[in-house]
Amino acid sequence: MTDFSKTRDLFDLPKGVTYLDGNSLGPLPKATPARMQKMLTEEWGHHLIGAWNACDWMALPGHLGDRIGRLIGAEAGQTVIGDTLSIKVFQALAAALKLNPTRKVILSDSGNFPSDLYMAQGLVQLLGQDYELRVVAPEEVETNITDEIAVTLITEVDYRTGRRHDMPSLTAKAHANGALAIWDLAHSAGAFAPDVAAGGADFAVGCTYKYLNAGPGAPAFIYVAPRHADHAEPALAGWLGHDAPFDFDQAYRPAPGVTRMRVGTPPVLQMAALDAALDIWDTVDMEALRARSLELTDRFIAAVESTCPDLTLATPREHAQRGSQVSFRHPQGYAIMQALIAQRVIGDFRAPDILRFGFTPLYTTDADVDHAATTLATILDQRLWDTPEFQARKAVT
Amino acid sequence: MTDFSKTRDLFDLPKGVTYLDGNSLGPLPKATPARMQKMLTEEWGHHLIGAWNACDWMALPGHLGDRIGRLIGAEAGQTVIGDTLSIKVFQALAAALKLNPTRKVILSDSGNFPSDLYMAQGLVQLLGQDYELRVVAPEEVETNITDEIAVTLITEVDYRTGRRHDMPSLTAKAHANGALAIWDLAHSAGAFAPDVAAGGADFAVGCTYKYLNAGPGAPAFIYVAPRHADHAEPALAGWLGHDAPFDFDQAYRPAPGVTRMRVGTPPVLQMAALDAALDIWDTVDMEALRARSLELTDRFIAAVESTCPDLTLATPREHAQRGSQVSFRHPQGYAIMQALIAQRVIGDFRAPDILRFGFTPLYTTDADVDHAATTLATILDQRLWDTPEFQARKAVT
Repeated sequence: MTDFSKTRDLFDLPKGVTYLDGNSLGPLPKATPARMQKMLTEEWGHHLIGAWNACDWMALPGHLGDRIGRLIGAEAGQTVIGDTLSIKVFQALAAALKLNPTRKVILSDSGNFPSDLYMAQGLVQLLGQDYELRVVAPEEVETNITDEIAVTLITEVDYRTGRRHDMPSLTAKAHANGALAIWDLAHSAGAFAPDVAAGGADFAVGCTYKYLNAGPGAPAFIYVAPRHADHAEPALAGWLGHDAPFDFDQAYRPAPGVTRMRVGTPPVLQMAALDAALDIWDTVDMEALRARSLELTDRFIAAVESTCPDLTLATPREHAQRGSQVSFRHPQGYAIMQALIAQRVIGDFRAPDILRFGFTPLYTTDADVDHAATTLATILDQRLWDTPEFQARKAVT
Repeated sequence: MTDFSKTRDLFDLPKGVTYLDGNSLGPLPKATPARMQKMLTEEWGHHLIGAWNACDWMALPGHLGDRIGRLIGAEAGQTVIGDTLSIKVFQALAAALKLNPTRKVILSDSGNFPSDLYMAQGLVQLLGQDYELRVVAPEEVETNITDEIAVTLITEVDYRTGRRHDMPSLTAKAHANGALAIWDLAHSAGAFAPDVAAGGADFAVGCTYKYLNAGPGAPAFIYVAPRHADHAEPALAGWLGHDAPFDFDQAYRPAPGVTRMRVGTPPVLQMAALDAALDIWDTVDMEALRARSLELTDRFIAAVESTCPDLTLATPREHAQRGSQVSFRHPQGYAIMQALIAQRVIGDFRAPDILRFGFTPLYTTDADVDHAATTLATILDQRLWDTPEFQARKAVT
């Protein structure tokens, strides 16, 4: 059983800051700088080109993928890391369309990340030939899964509201209609214990810089269900996804299994930071994590609802229908969030009116929850958000 | 005028090692560990999500691209970094095919990196519809540029022989035949001063972990000629290539210029290492670099040819026809290179019979050249390569 009163000490959190934005960028694990120094001086500096062998850099994308696999319900050998989430979305989509060659429609929803929708649009535009991206409201996904759909591209947890889709039921509907299902776990991995195997996902993708704490620009991951892994055609036919990369054959021949989803040279320095971050995750009991996450989010909802009557809960109240984030709506949401940040309570704002707070049992305490709720109540009571400064600033992320 | 007797001290080279493999992985700049610590603790650790603004992470891919641009003959605003070289090859190819929509043939040569050929194969396979990758011998590229060709995909310097293609003349032939030209500068950038503007390149791509010394897995770069930059259609339609990424629009709309070639969240930690590496490059006079590179390579060719009669020069002797690498052929090349590495002279082997040596004026000295040549001669004279150990080992990179 993980003791979450002790895990906070594994992070280097700035004093005086209440950080509720780990769903955008997780904080720095204390072990990361030393791991990175070792990578720079002992691995790269000392071994130079020889480190690819001597330090096993070449195998790291698979090893790191396996460690993430445990957090999302995958077996070893089914997950690999590399590139960015956008690239992994493109790979999964392109492979899924080839696996379902008589159909042309990608189904997604308006609660998905725009970044995922953009990648799908780029692919559809590239392919031409009547391929189509169809975007419906989140609550209309299920009824729109018809025998026209080639593949669904759904983000499990909505980045604005925190609403969680039902992976097993939507996937079952997709399969019953002859469609494949791709799940984006960006706000799932490390937030709770998504289960790609039980959920029946054909492909799953996600990033590691949010709940997993691997640092800014950390690599993404991709899971391919074993039933597809030896058949999925890699559109991004990279040399490290080749069956024998060091034979320097001129003809591409995909490696068996998920390895074929590797593309170019992996980001070795970012992998060192991911490695250090996963050292923490290796010790975490995912059921305990979920239980603690629900305690934290329930506590926040209760506190805010009792003291901030002008805020409207945007996140579903039911446990099964949400991840580890809580969002409230307010027409002045942007200015309120700026006022909160000025008081060193860090959440973020998402247009048009969402105040978003991420809860991360590894380092969020009850005291953080209470302080955030109290500060928010004070800002609303005293209209501290109502200044030109807070209304004018432009958020970047 | 750059003083190359002083730049060596900017690198952390292991004692006793003669490193002639900077064309595979450049060594660690001494400034990199401190720059990385600052990134980890002062930027990520202290500013958390706010660092995207406070530390200007969001603009770094363009700033770093501009600094690389100077080394390849590009103006500011024409080059951007991100992803891997394979991804950038894919982007350039997909955009070029859309710019030349009535043609179906990609022309490349057998001296190109297999990794580039694989990406082209993946794209051709994805597109279907009679798209074709045509691979000819390097010396037959020119005669194969016909009015059938949509785009040429040529690596300027052959990774095995070091033979350099004539960028201006092949590009002119491509343009005269209505084709576009993509140049891979992986073994050019930092090796000499390729000139994408004078050479007429439509797109150029390259990596930063070889001659540029940005570390293992460092991001790639892409240059788009200004005449195409506002028209090139990004197949990998990433949110950071969007005209207004933080509007979270559902529809993709490419940013003006080369920015549209950005895809997902950039690798911030790898960018810190690239930044430190470019601090050195910012000071380098590229004409002086080329002059010094030719001194070093001429010296090595002369020394080896006078003492190792069994080795055959694989690199063209003429200055204009080579980069900053020298290769020799020997039927026992693999074992000879293992014997050299055992004596701490690091070059590398490329199948079937190439001994490859990279010369990097920033840290290669005359003494390195002489020591490498002498060691090589001793190994050949005394048949030190002729042991089961050296014949059996399998190279990885």
